[in-house]
Amino acid sequence: MTPSGVITLLTDFGVKDPYVGVMKGAILGRFRQATLVDLTHAISPQDIAAAGFWIERSYRWFPAGTVHLVVVDPGVGSAREPLALEVDDHFFVGPDNGVFTAVLGHPGPKRAHRVDPQRLGVRQLSTTFHGRDLFGPAAAALAASSDGDLERVGPSREPPAAFVRDPTPSALSGVHGRIHGSIHGSLSGSVVVTDHFGNLITDIPEEELPSEGAWHVRFAGRSLSVVRTYADAEPGQCVALVGSFGTLELAARDASAAELLGAGPGDLVSIEAE
Amino acid sequence: MTPSGVITLLTDFGVKDPYVGVMKGAILGRFRQATLVDLTHAISPQDIAAAGFWIERSYRWFPAGTVHLVVVDPGVGSAREPLALEVDDHFFVGPDNGVFTAVLGHPGPKRAHRVDPQRLGVRQLSTTFHGRDLFGPAAAALAASSDGDLERVGPSREPPAAFVRDPTPSALSGVHGRIHGSIHGSLSGSVVVTDHFGNLITDIPEEELPSEGAWHVRFAGRSLSVVRTYADAEPGQCVALVGSFGTLELAARDASAAELLGAGPGDLVSIEAE
Amino acid sequence: MTPSGVITLLTDFGVKDPYVGVMKGAILGRFRQATLVDLTHAISPQDIAAAGFWIERSYRWFPAGTVHLVVVDPGVGSAREPLALEVDDHFFVGPDNGVFTAVLGHPGPKRAHRVDPQRLGVRQLSTTFHGRDLFGPAAAALAASSDGDLERVGPSREPPAAFVRDPTPSALSGVHGRIHGSIHGSLSGSVVVTDHFGNLITDIPEEELPSEGAWHVRFAGRSLSVVRTYADAEPGQCVALVGSFGTLELAARDASAAELLGAGPGDLVSIEAE
Repeated sequence: MTPSGVITLLTDFGVKDPYVGVMKGAILGRFRQATLVDLTHAISPQDIAAAGFWIERSYRWFPAGTVHLVVVDPGVGSAREPLALEVDDHFFVGPDNGVFTAVLGHPGPKRAHRVDPQRLGVRQLSTTFHGRDLFGPAAAALAASSDGDLERVGPSREPPAAFVRDPTPSALSGVHGRIHGSIHGSLSGSVVVTDHFGNLITDIPEEELPSEGAWHVRFAGRSLSVVRTYADAEPGQCVALVGSFGTLELAARDASAAELLGAGPGDLVSIEAE
Repeated sequence: MTPSGVITLLTDFGVKDPYVGVMKGAILGRFRQATLVDLTHAISPQDIAAAGFWIERSYRWFPAGTVHLVVVDPGVGSAREPLALEVDDHFFVGPDNGVFTAVLGHPGPKRAHRVDPQRLGVRQLSTTFHGRDLFGPAAAALAASSDGDLERVGPSREPPAAFVRDPTPSALSGVHGRIHGSIHGSLSGSVVVTDHFGNLITDIPEEELPSEGAWHVRFAGRSLSVVRTYADAEPGQCVALVGSFGTLELAARDASAAELLGAGPGDLVSIEAE
Repeated sequence: MTPSGVITLLTDFGVKDPYVGVMKGAILGRFRQATLVDLTHAISPQDIAAAGFWIERSYRWFPAGTVHLVVVDPGVGSAREPLALEVDDHFFVGPDNGVFTAVLGHPGPKRAHRVDPQRLGVRQLSTTFHGRDLFGPAAAALAASSDGDLERVGPSREPPAAFVRDPTPSALSGVHGRIHGSIHGSLSGSVVVTDHFGNLITDIPEEELPSEGAWHVRFAGRSLSVVRTYADAEPGQCVALVGSFGTLELAARDASAAELLGAGPGDLVSIEAE
């Protein structure tokens, strides 16, 4: 895949300190023409499940050949492997700690390489900031290349099946983690993230929802109607709808469903025929 | 107007989720060379008045031909119209819900078109995220064009006078909303936003302030002196001054005027001769 | 030094209001090709010490010839001088209020000029937003130039020794401020900033730490072991390590050391042989 020159960044670094900026400096030092786009840096510290969900739902909105840099890395400095992947015409760089479980659920062909500091010419590798010292340089090397050949960042490695999977329940591993998990096929799932507006975003993909017959959503002891968009709800009413990232979402009009329902990540959702 | 290639973004999306990033992905997919600048994504959910104030005060600091994308859109998925405007050598894209009331107060010539998904070649339009699916692509199409012709994004529409106006009191509609509102001509106004430093920014423009004679500001039962800059105040003293965006502002030196005065948006301010 | 075309931004503006965005607009109006990188805008209002620490620790991760714009400026509109510096193949622009104390501690050659609005062709200088009206334009002029000649932004000025130094204790002035301060040579220092993860970052540079023999860190009445990376700590254990910015750091695995220790900026740290 020919790189697009775009690099996205998704971390749990926050924006209080210059960590994200310095990682961008390390990237620009290797690829001055990179176009850098922040996805978010507000992942809760070390919340691999949320990071994995968002990167899988977000990558497809970028030009093919984009490099997606994901650094949620509680094991930095330990033996966890640094990875570079090519999946569905996109590149992914980050730690092998389960953060790519959902991306690797994609049914198409996949390539995987181990990121090798020596091959990248990294001279100094800190023990605590591989986003700057290893993953950023790997993303820059891929994005700057004419061919996107993963050999540039390190040797080919084990087939993806051997990767570390997100250790949380499959329901928390993003949509593809769920599809391949133990609750495959049932019309239930869970909330993965609460967004800025208080919408509760679940891992139940649109494709699994009933295409015929009337149905509603069971959540937190309540029965929620299904609507087409936020404006279809009454003010203050909690409803369910297919969110813009293709999964079932619980929302309230001009209000926070998370607050109204007292709910959050991990809470179970099910679909009931009427 | 020849587009500058710069696109600014002002939303109520927050930065906790990848919504802004994904909207940028959709833009880059259509215009790879766009220069993207965040104005702010911390508008309170659906605070059309604050968004309208800030975009009108901010656009002039960008190169002529910049496209300003404003997505504060409680009516997403409902019948509200998507708009593209050309005002004062700048372009504006967003929903017709009053967010452009202040921009449309500009006395110069104005052009307005309705954004048409078909003309943009939008294949899939979600019901909940038109920033990504419609407004972003429209901004990209304008910014990428050689001529900035609004016909590229949709047909010409009603004259601007027919647009939805911000339904809040004119005092909250930004400076131009105010000038054309019911309190036109009086030396009073209100606080529109409290900024990060706790400064209370009002909608009273510098041009209306007395150019002769001594005067002070009446606010929250207090009389505030008028100074030239923050450093002219005593530590902890609340004062009034002309802020950097050209309106009267209430501030305290090295402290939050909002906290000291217990005040915020909507509170009334008046000017008194001495 | 040939400019790299990259401009970093470090301010206390926050991201709630469009101040940072508008400053970028003013830069792009003068240098359309600038690559803009946010370091952070979450410096506590007017915390010159934290800004000074971070810019000194961060600049080296950017390409040589980068312009670093630092606007933490409580004295805006008063007599404090606007500065442009060249230190260690990087450029720095900001107020002469101590924010560059640590950068100026660099042992190499330094050049310093006063930023002159007239030389920059600034027509309108507000009294409250020199980031937009003066410092941004100066950074743009330098970054856009072919030679990085500081004469472009204003006349050469007093040798650096005459600059305003950070008025807080030298321990709070960043690593170089500390080295040249009153506690030079002792194995003690203080916490400068608490980061997003709750790590307590000190001003004690790696180079001063004992290279031989066993030692531990004394902090808040506790004795902390020294480890290589976060993953070497037990869950919940507070430890000391050399952080990724080259100074001693107090941290806890998967937890906030600041919360566990009830500590923050200004707290004293010392090194004890065993």
